[in-house]
Amino acid sequence: MATVTPRTLSGFMELLPPPQQQMEKMMDILRKTYALYGFTPLDTPVIESSEVLLAKAGGETEKQIYRFTKGDADLSLRFDLTVPLAKYVALHYNDLSFPFRRYQIGKVYRGERAQRGRFREFYQADIDIIGDGKLDIMSEAEIPAIISETFTRLGLRRFQIRVNNRKILNGFYACLGLTDKAQDIMRTVDKLDKIGPEKVKTLLTEDCGLTEQQAGEILGFMAISGSNEAVLAALESYRGRNAVFDQGLEELTTVVKYLAAFGVPAEKFAVDLTIARGLDYYTGTVYETTMLDHPEIGSICSGGRYDNLAEYYTDKILPGVGISIGLTRLFYVLSEQGMLNPEMDTAPADVLILPMTEDLTPAVSFAAGLRQAGIRTQLYTEQKKFKAKMSYADKLNIPFVVFLGEDEIRAGAATVKNLRMANDLPPEELGRLEQAGIYKQVTLPTEEALAYLRRLLDQRPPQAPIVDAPAPAEGCGASATQAP
Amino acid sequence: MATVTPRTLSGFMELLPPPQQQMEKMMDILRKTYALYGFTPLDTPVIESSEVLLAKAGGETEKQIYRFTKGDADLSLRFDLTVPLAKYVALHYNDLSFPFRRYQIGKVYRGERAQRGRFREFYQADIDIIGDGKLDIMSEAEIPAIISETFTRLGLRRFQIRVNNRKILNGFYACLGLTDKAQDIMRTVDKLDKIGPEKVKTLLTEDCGLTEQQAGEILGFMAISGSNEAVLAALESYRGRNAVFDQGLEELTTVVKYLAAFGVPAEKFAVDLTIARGLDYYTGTVYETTMLDHPEIGSICSGGRYDNLAEYYTDKILPGVGISIGLTRLFYVLSEQGMLNPEMDTAPADVLILPMTEDLTPAVSFAAGLRQAGIRTQLYTEQKKFKAKMSYADKLNIPFVVFLGEDEIRAGAATVKNLRMANDLPPEELGRLEQAGIYKQVTLPTEEALAYLRRLLDQRPPQAPIVDAPAPAEGCGASATQAP
Repeated sequence: MATVTPRTLSGFMELLPPPQQQMEKMMDILRKTYALYGFTPLDTPVIESSEVLLAKAGGETEKQIYRFTKGDADLSLRFDLTVPLAKYVALHYNDLSFPFRRYQIGKVYRGERAQRGRFREFYQADIDIIGDGKLDIMSEAEIPAIISETFTRLGLRRFQIRVNNRKILNGFYACLGLTDKAQDIMRTVDKLDKIGPEKVKTLLTEDCGLTEQQAGEILGFMAISGSNEAVLAALESYRGRNAVFDQGLEELTTVVKYLAAFGVPAEKFAVDLTIARGLDYYTGTVYETTMLDHPEIGSICSGGRYDNLAEYYTDKILPGVGISIGLTRLFYVLSEQGMLNPEMDTAPADVLILPMTEDLTPAVSFAAGLRQAGIRTQLYTEQKKFKAKMSYADKLNIPFVVFLGEDEIRAGAATVKNLRMANDLPPEELGRLEQAGIYKQVTLPTEEALAYLRRLLDQRPPQAPIVDAPAPAEGCGASATQAP
Repeated sequence: MATVTPRTLSGFMELLPPPQQQMEKMMDILRKTYALYGFTPLDTPVIESSEVLLAKAGGETEKQIYRFTKGDADLSLRFDLTVPLAKYVALHYNDLSFPFRRYQIGKVYRGERAQRGRFREFYQADIDIIGDGKLDIMSEAEIPAIISETFTRLGLRRFQIRVNNRKILNGFYACLGLTDKAQDIMRTVDKLDKIGPEKVKTLLTEDCGLTEQQAGEILGFMAISGSNEAVLAALESYRGRNAVFDQGLEELTTVVKYLAAFGVPAEKFAVDLTIARGLDYYTGTVYETTMLDHPEIGSICSGGRYDNLAEYYTDKILPGVGISIGLTRLFYVLSEQGMLNPEMDTAPADVLILPMTEDLTPAVSFAAGLRQAGIRTQLYTEQKKFKAKMSYADKLNIPFVVFLGEDEIRAGAATVKNLRMANDLPPEELGRLEQAGIYKQVTLPTEEALAYLRRLLDQRPPQAPIVDAPAPAEGCGASATQAP
C-alpha cells in the first residue's frame, strides 16, 4: 500500500519525456558546437571538500551552499563550474597543455529562496580557455563567435552579445580620480537600464559621493552608443590619458576587428559601455547576451576575461576567458515564452511495430533489421485492442506504425502506416504524394519497407529545438551580398 | 597566494581529458543504442526529500546515504536511479503512456568505505520498461538483446549475459517445502562460484537447517548446465509439480526462443540456474553479465523483472523489467585492465591552425570554414616559438596542423602537415601514400585544403572505446553459416 506521497522538491526541474527530449537535443548541440571549436569535455565531482570549494567564496554565495558532513568530512555541493575548474587546473597542471580549452555541462546547486523560474539545481554550460602565464587577446575575440554559432544552431535568432572591456572602465575611472570608488560606481551604473540616467546620477552623487561634474562625465561616457565603429571612434577621443584605458581600447578594437572573419553577423554583437559584470575577478573583455524580445530576462550567457583563475590553489598565474549559459533557466524561459519548437521530433521511436500473429519471430527480426539500419524501433507486444495500440503510437507521436499480420508474413511483407498524414487528405493531394512515393498506408516486401521507412525518415527536415522570429536584418544582409 | 591545497575527494572519479573523451564516447554509444530500442531519456534531481527517497530503503543502503538538512528540509542524494524512477512514474502517471520505456544515465551517491575501485559518486546507466497493470514477457526477452548490442558497440566482445527466472527458483523451493527458507538458501547458493558445492552444502545443512537430502536436491538442481537447450530440457523433467515453476519455465523458454531473432549471438547468452539476484523485489527473469576473462570483477550489468515498481508511492500496480550498467566502475575496470582503446581519437581538435602573419584575418576565416565543414578546429595564436607550437599539437594528439604564412596567404593557399605520418617513412611507402593522395605535408588552395582535410578525416576507421580479444566462437559461427 502506498505510504508516501511522491513529490519532487520545489526549485528542482523534472521534465516530462517530450520536453526532456528537447533539453537533450539542446545539450547535444552544445556539446557538438563546443567540440567544433576545440574544447574538450570535462566532468568533475558534484561534491567537493568544503575547504577546497569555499576557499574563495563568501557573502551571498556561501549562504546558498548545500554544505553537510559525512563521517569526519565537511562537504559541499558545487555552486558553479568555475571553482571546480580552478581546482582541476591547479591539481592536474602538469598533465594539461596550455592554452587549455574545456567545456563542461553539469548540474550546480544553490539553495536560493524558492520562486518561480529560480532553480536550486540547475545546469550550467561553460566554456573556458586557460593560459599558462599569458593568454592572447584572440581568445577573447573568439568567444562571441562560439556563442553566436551555438545560439544560432539552437534556433535562437533574436539575440545580441553585448561586449565591453573592464580596462576601459578602470582606465576611465582612474582619469577621473575615482579608482577607489570604481566598484561602487559600476554597481550603480549597472542600474541604468532599470532606473534611467537621472536616478543613477542622483545615486552617484548622493550615495557614492561624486561631484556633479564627475557624475555628468560618467553618464556622458555611458551614453556613447551607435554602431561598433561609432562607439570605437568616440572612445578614440579619450585615448592618451591613461595607459590602462588605452590597452582596453586596443583589446576591444581587436575583438571587433576579427568578428566578421569569425563569422559573427554584425547585428548579433554590440559594444556596450554599460556592461561591467558584478564579479570582481573580470579584468578585460566582459560579455552579456540578451534576447532582444525579452530584455526583462536579463543576460542568458555571460562571462569574461580574468587574470588569475586559481590563485587560491596555486602560485601559477593562470589567466583565462570563459562564458556560461544558465541552461536550466534558459530552458524554463523558452518554455514559458512558447519558444520550444513544437515541430521537433520528441517521439521515443520512429517506428512502432504491431505484430498480429502468435509467433513473434518475424516481428522481432524486422525490428532487429530496422535498428541495424539506425531506425529507432519499438516492438509493441502487449495484449491490447487494436485501437489502444494505435492510440499509444498517437500519444507518443511516433510517426510510423508497421503491421505484421499473417498475410504480410506469408508474403514476406510489411504494411507501413504513416501517422503524420491526415486521414482526410483530398484525393488530388493524396495522388500527388503517392507520385512522390509517400503513402498513407502501403504493403511492401520487408526489405523495401525498411528502405521506404529509411527514405521517409531521412527526408524529414532537421528541426532546431528553439523557434524564434527571424532577425529583421537577415533579409537585408542577404540581398546586400547579391548587390553588384 | 595559494592558501588551499587543491584535491579531489577519495572515491570520486575525476578524469584527465583523454580518458574523459573515452568516457564521453561510451555515454554517447549508450544514449544512441538505448534510443534505437525506443527508450526515452529522463533526468531526475540528484537531491530528493529523504521521506520520498528512503520510503523503502533500510539496512546497509540507508547507512550509505548522503543525508542532510537545509533550512527545514530533510534531504538525501539519490543512491540509485530506480527509486527516483518509481517516484517519477507514480508522480507523472497521468502524463505517461505505458509501456513506458526510459533510459537514464546519471550520477548516484553512496558513502561506502573508501577502497580501490569503489566509488562514492558513480554513474549508473539504466533502462527500464514499465507496464500499467501488466507487462508482456517479450520485454524480458528484449533486454538481453539491448545489452548485447550495447556492449558490442562499445567494443566489448568477451562477455556473457547470464539469465535465470525467479519463478523457477521459487517453484522449485516450494516443491521441497522450503518456501520460507528460500531467501536464505538463495543467498547461500549465490556463493557457489566462490566457495564451491561442498561448502555450500555444509552451510545449507548447518546454517539453513536443511536435511542432507534437501541440500543434495538443491545442489543437483544448481548443477544443471550445458547449452541453453540442454538446460531447458533438463528443467522439463521438473514440470507439472508446481504452477509457479511451470510459469517460470514457460517464461524462460520464451526468452530463449526469441534470442536469435533479436540478434543475440548464442555464445553471448547463457541460462544459469545459480543466478538469483539479492534484491527481494525481482519476481521473474533476472540478469547478470560477466566479462569472460575477468570473472573476478563480478557482474557488470544486472537487473530483472519486478512486479510492483512504485508500491510505496501509489496503489497502481506497475510491473517492469530493468537493467543497469555501473558505468564508473566498468570504466575503472577497463582502464585497469588496459582495455580502453589507445587508437581512439581523444584529441580536442582535428586541426590546429598556426598563423604566421601579424594580421590573423585569413587564419580566422579558414578556421570558420573548417568548422562550417564539421572539422573540429583550434586556432593557435599564442606568442610562442615554432617548436613549442608543434609540441602542443603533438601532446594533444591533434592529427593535422595547418600553416598560414605570407606565401600561403598571397597564393590563397594553406599548408597541411599530417602529424600522424612518421617522419622517417621509406621513400617507396611515401610514394605509395602520395599516389593515394595522402601527403606528409602539402600546400593546396584553401578550398582544396579544406576538402583534403575532410577526406582524410572521413577515411579514419571508426574506433570503439573498448578493445577486447575476439570471441573464439565468432570465427566458427561465420564459417558454419558458410557450410552447405
